[in-house]
Amino acid sequence: MKSIATANARLTIEDVWSLCREDLKRVEDQIRTDLKSDVPLIDTISTYLFTSGGKRFRPLLLILTSQLAGYRGNTQIELASVVELIHTATLLHDDVLDDADIRRGNKTARMLWGNQASILVGDYLYTKAQCKIVSLRNHDINEAVAEATRRMTQGELSQLTYHGDVEITEEDYLQIIGNKTAALIAASCRIGAILGDCPPDKKGDIESFGWNIGMAFQLADDTLDYVADKTKLGKSIGKDLQEGKITLPLLSLLQRCSQDEFTKIEKIIRLHDFTPENLDYILKLMYHYDVIEYSFDKARGYVETAKKNLMLFKDSTPLQALFAVADYVVDREL
Amino acid sequence: MKSIATANARLTIEDVWSLCREDLKRVEDQIRTDLKSDVPLIDTISTYLFTSGGKRFRPLLLILTSQLAGYRGNTQIELASVVELIHTATLLHDDVLDDADIRRGNKTARMLWGNQASILVGDYLYTKAQCKIVSLRNHDINEAVAEATRRMTQGELSQLTYHGDVEITEEDYLQIIGNKTAALIAASCRIGAILGDCPPDKKGDIESFGWNIGMAFQLADDTLDYVADKTKLGKSIGKDLQEGKITLPLLSLLQRCSQDEFTKIEKIIRLHDFTPENLDYILKLMYHYDVIEYSFDKARGYVETAKKNLMLFKDSTPLQALFAVADYVVDREL
Repeated sequence: MKSIATANARLTIEDVWSLCREDLKRVEDQIRTDLKSDVPLIDTISTYLFTSGGKRFRPLLLILTSQLAGYRGNTQIELASVVELIHTATLLHDDVLDDADIRRGNKTARMLWGNQASILVGDYLYTKAQCKIVSLRNHDINEAVAEATRRMTQGELSQLTYHGDVEITEEDYLQIIGNKTAALIAASCRIGAILGDCPPDKKGDIESFGWNIGMAFQLADDTLDYVADKTKLGKSIGKDLQEGKITLPLLSLLQRCSQDEFTKIEKIIRLHDFTPENLDYILKLMYHYDVIEYSFDKARGYVETAKKNLMLFKDSTPLQALFAVADYVVDREL
Repeated sequence: MKSIATANARLTIEDVWSLCREDLKRVEDQIRTDLKSDVPLIDTISTYLFTSGGKRFRPLLLILTSQLAGYRGNTQIELASVVELIHTATLLHDDVLDDADIRRGNKTARMLWGNQASILVGDYLYTKAQCKIVSLRNHDINEAVAEATRRMTQGELSQLTYHGDVEITEEDYLQIIGNKTAALIAASCRIGAILGDCPPDKKGDIESFGWNIGMAFQLADDTLDYVADKTKLGKSIGKDLQEGKITLPLLSLLQRCSQDEFTKIEKIIRLHDFTPENLDYILKLMYHYDVIEYSFDKARGYVETAKKNLMLFKDSTPLQALFAVADYVVDREL
């Protein structure tokens, strides 16, 4: 990261991208090198995946937390590429699970090369990531990654179990997103802290920061699903609902609405009757019962907690950059 | 393993199962303990998977090679359960990839709980196995497992690339089965050797034994697919062919038959025209051109090489048990 004149100046997210541009470019190069293979299908699909967008949010956090923890080596680039490989592996499987046609505005790999190739390339990216990690021979990093990936899968399985279940509680929901999303983001930050060789309590703080940012990230994503339009996120409104995923805005609505409204919503979900009129009915109720704002507030609460997690670190550019990322997580599309 | 009177007595495969019964029972218990989870779907599916058969071939080899290498501890049980978790994870994904209805004479998990659950429980078993392995904090074992699983996925991807390709060579085929099958069996044996802390060349010998046994195992399996009847292996004849997998018997036939026969077989494969008459036509040609025997001979060749890999080890019960397993791999259904 380039030094900037005043370490404690408040940074914008654009400043952060600009500061980390070179490191993130090295991450891209690393991914390209890692995925060279003599199986052409691996090359084709991975080139497609890694050139069709993605914010590299986990690599960014890993790099910034390693800087916050005082790390001055180069291994953060390799590890940042590894967490992105793992994240991409889960996206490949998610798209198969969700029958998804579009991701980030582009056709999904399963639409272009089929489910079989998507499942296997997902498996390949994950196993390749494992090879990279264990070759670094750092037990703490091995354990952080293994536990995060186990939790991710467990989260996905819980989500499947609660498919279309209108009785899901906020607690169930928070546990699912904690596992499926926050765990890997927390692990990315923990890896940054491990590289920097912080004292254990500070490692814990950095990991908690990641956890809370991860929670905020998924909460914002799930809320934006009822707000964002097609041009902004490359996906249509209420997509989660149509996939049977009952996220915070909807479950809060179900808890606040009248019995008649509950019955009608439950019927729409049960019969998969997602006509424009029915979606509009649900969206109007969401605004009426203020659940969109409630969900964003919840996300903002996690961001505030995340910032507090770092209160014992002295002011620095990486700290301000992490604060900017924290704010961006919730405010990115508002 | 119980001691037996004459260490160098030739053992039968039944003797081996009997000698290892207690250890394998401990492996089953370990798997059950490992898979306890608060997500009911994980419990349900894994209980089903681990009570519906399977020979525990990889755990058996890991246990026997650890004994051959002089290991006297208990970690082999945990590691044997880990390799079985990984193997089972791949079966879950394979059944989704192959649209398989039946495995080992029982309905596949995907038939009972769907593709989504099968993909995710496969992912879960694999990530759980990783957690177990890294918790042992042995870098050599971490690397053996990571590399084997990467190769398995690469092998599956190559197999997909060659789907229905009548131009596949014996070399391509051997590379595919090396990756998809022999790699994990070799790793199981290598782990046994690592536990016993052999000198590096003997570790290499034990790993090569596993590799050659793995090659023989898959060659025999692919050949039995054209021999075995439904009651014996719980699958119908020519199943691989119908799934577009061109294995050694078929590719050898394609290399030996006349141009007319080649054209006819190629057309059957291209059009997926697997009528009983067409299957019978192919099978008759296979016997005519002696490719079944050729494939079994190839498998037996790997078994002989495997035995030679262990020639520097002094005679012992584990050595004789490994020889019996080696013979069994090819002769199990003849």
